[in-house]
Amino acid sequence: MRKVALVGVGLTKFTKADISLEVLMLSAIKSLFEDTRNLTQKDVSVVLTSTSDNSKYLSSIVSELAGLTPKISHSVESLCNSGANSAVSAFAYIASGLGDVALVVGAERFDSPGRVLEWDKSRGQYKHPIYWSSMFTKAHMRKYGTTKEDLAIVSAKNHKNATANPYAYFEKEYSVDEVMRSKNLTEEIRLLDCSLPCSGSTAILLTSEEIAKKYTDCPVWITGIGQKTISAGFTKNTDLTTMKSTIHAATDAYKMSKTPPSGVDVAEVHDAFTICEIIELEDLGFAKKGEGRHYVKNSYETQDRKINPRGGLIGAGHPLGATGIAQIAEIVQQLQGRAEKRQVQNAKVGLIQNMSAAATSSTVLILQS
Amino acid sequence: MRKVALVGVGLTKFTKADISLEVLMLSAIKSLFEDTRNLTQKDVSVVLTSTSDNSKYLSSIVSELAGLTPKISHSVESLCNSGANSAVSAFAYIASGLGDVALVVGAERFDSPGRVLEWDKSRGQYKHPIYWSSMFTKAHMRKYGTTKEDLAIVSAKNHKNATANPYAYFEKEYSVDEVMRSKNLTEEIRLLDCSLPCSGSTAILLTSEEIAKKYTDCPVWITGIGQKTISAGFTKNTDLTTMKSTIHAATDAYKMSKTPPSGVDVAEVHDAFTICEIIELEDLGFAKKGEGRHYVKNSYETQDRKINPRGGLIGAGHPLGATGIAQIAEIVQQLQGRAEKRQVQNAKVGLIQNMSAAATSSTVLILQS
Repeated sequence: MRKVALVGVGLTKFTKADISLEVLMLSAIKSLFEDTRNLTQKDVSVVLTSTSDNSKYLSSIVSELAGLTPKISHSVESLCNSGANSAVSAFAYIASGLGDVALVVGAERFDSPGRVLEWDKSRGQYKHPIYWSSMFTKAHMRKYGTTKEDLAIVSAKNHKNATANPYAYFEKEYSVDEVMRSKNLTEEIRLLDCSLPCSGSTAILLTSEEIAKKYTDCPVWITGIGQKTISAGFTKNTDLTTMKSTIHAATDAYKMSKTPPSGVDVAEVHDAFTICEIIELEDLGFAKKGEGRHYVKNSYETQDRKINPRGGLIGAGHPLGATGIAQIAEIVQQLQGRAEKRQVQNAKVGLIQNMSAAATSSTVLILQS
Repeated sequence: MRKVALVGVGLTKFTKADISLEVLMLSAIKSLFEDTRNLTQKDVSVVLTSTSDNSKYLSSIVSELAGLTPKISHSVESLCNSGANSAVSAFAYIASGLGDVALVVGAERFDSPGRVLEWDKSRGQYKHPIYWSSMFTKAHMRKYGTTKEDLAIVSAKNHKNATANPYAYFEKEYSVDEVMRSKNLTEEIRLLDCSLPCSGSTAILLTSEEIAKKYTDCPVWITGIGQKTISAGFTKNTDLTTMKSTIHAATDAYKMSKTPPSGVDVAEVHDAFTICEIIELEDLGFAKKGEGRHYVKNSYETQDRKINPRGGLIGAGHPLGATGIAQIAEIVQQLQGRAEKRQVQNAKVGLIQNMSAAATSSTVLILQS
């Protein structure tokens, strides 16, 4: 298998703007070209778009608008986990030798049809993601004694981290008390426990090992990949205190990269809701089961930015198809030592965890400088 | 690069039925499991769905319904060329070593939102594909003297071939005269010059070389892959008598497989409209430029089934996301010698050409037994 490098990122500010998907993607592609040394349009042999929008033929439209004429070009959809899926596809194209330079761009509009899980008959009328997160929260509270204050600390920490991210949707800090006093949406969940669907786009560039140094002095290598789909709905979910698909994906990714959880210096995890980050810290092996909340509290108190340095989905916003790409872009910048105020010192190994729909599917990637 | 085999197919009848996309796909998956020796649900590590429907999280939904829990799972969209794109993705996953057994299933409903090209501003109000095909037809008539009768022969031939295909939408023959007397839709195009969007699904199974023989005695190898996206709209189209993206894709596919056009025994080409098959025969190197119509006439008169033995899109119907997969499934059956009444004798090398939106993008695959 050929080695695959990440060599450039294209970032845009996440907003609530009523901007077309094509224009959002073009902005990220423009930023990517500005970020990547020596990159010309004719170099790009793979263009993958990632979105849950209803657009058709999007990768070709965006390619034409950006002056690209790739060999391989299509759109990838797997809800909130579309971004990491498209990055893994790009990896496969390069590793197999079918492509050499792959541009992956994710985008979503604030009003994406992917926000509500209309297809999941097992949820009855409870199709908004807030309901599954409430069930996860209640289950974790019962089994491990996690409290509403523990949840609020996740949100306060990620909003604080986001203040150092110029591309984040949210721009101000919220105290733990402010999070706890935000609007009650269900018995377990308040407004500031939730990530916010928004408009935004992020792009990344992947290349084969042979040509990576043409585009950057500091390529970042994808050394571990794990993916798992358990189901699509709640019917197969027997334990709501854990994310089974994430455990499968993490096990495979750690094995492929020969990296233990303790070897990870910085991570972007999928905090669609505050409870998610707590469970993920446990399922990714960063904390023992039931102790995720202590890990978060310690990070908040010591201002440790290891987990979700860009603010996660809660602080940065959650444009569905862009989220996995934005997580990867953050880890690339961290491992290249150019994350500015967000920089985790001496970060050499990074992790991304991206998931969909109550963690019925997950992707875990390990990146190394 | 690891070798990749096609080892099984799952076929369903193409109809106008008002059936959900998930049920269509399940039917094809059931047929695939019946077709493939020793295949169990836990073997499948990659599930890709191909469609232009607005469904979300489709690959996970279909996986759950079919009892599959793959590692890699997402949906691929590139309009009418989605099917071949998803097959190439599956190839890349296996060739790179990320997966060993990939199930690719394409489906569409008769009322797919992909039927009309709403996104193409360069078409003005002429967003139905009939308008680009009329322009191609007029241009080819002017330059090469192609006639309405030449077009009608394509349709008569493909409808005749489809009568030997139990899964085809159309079940009866049409004479050249009947085609010519069918309803005029534009100055150049009559109803029976067009393929018909319909409901249908097809599945294929791809594996690595090491395990192919577990599932079939006659694996079919993907030996050539070519893909190209020129644009998304008409703005870049300077010559309407040729399909530039198909020429690029064919050149790469022939080169990769070390096969000349003369080495191809059987081919499925994308006859969205009658003019398409004529142009494609020329651009794929089966006929000299301007002589595609003579090639078709000779095939019709001699009852040669080399081109579109299952009836093509015109005879079999055109469920967008399924079409590329159905083309591949036909060539697999031909190269395995089990195409029954459609069998092309001694077929060893097959070709698939699948394209989107006025051939702004194309995929060409070479398959060998």
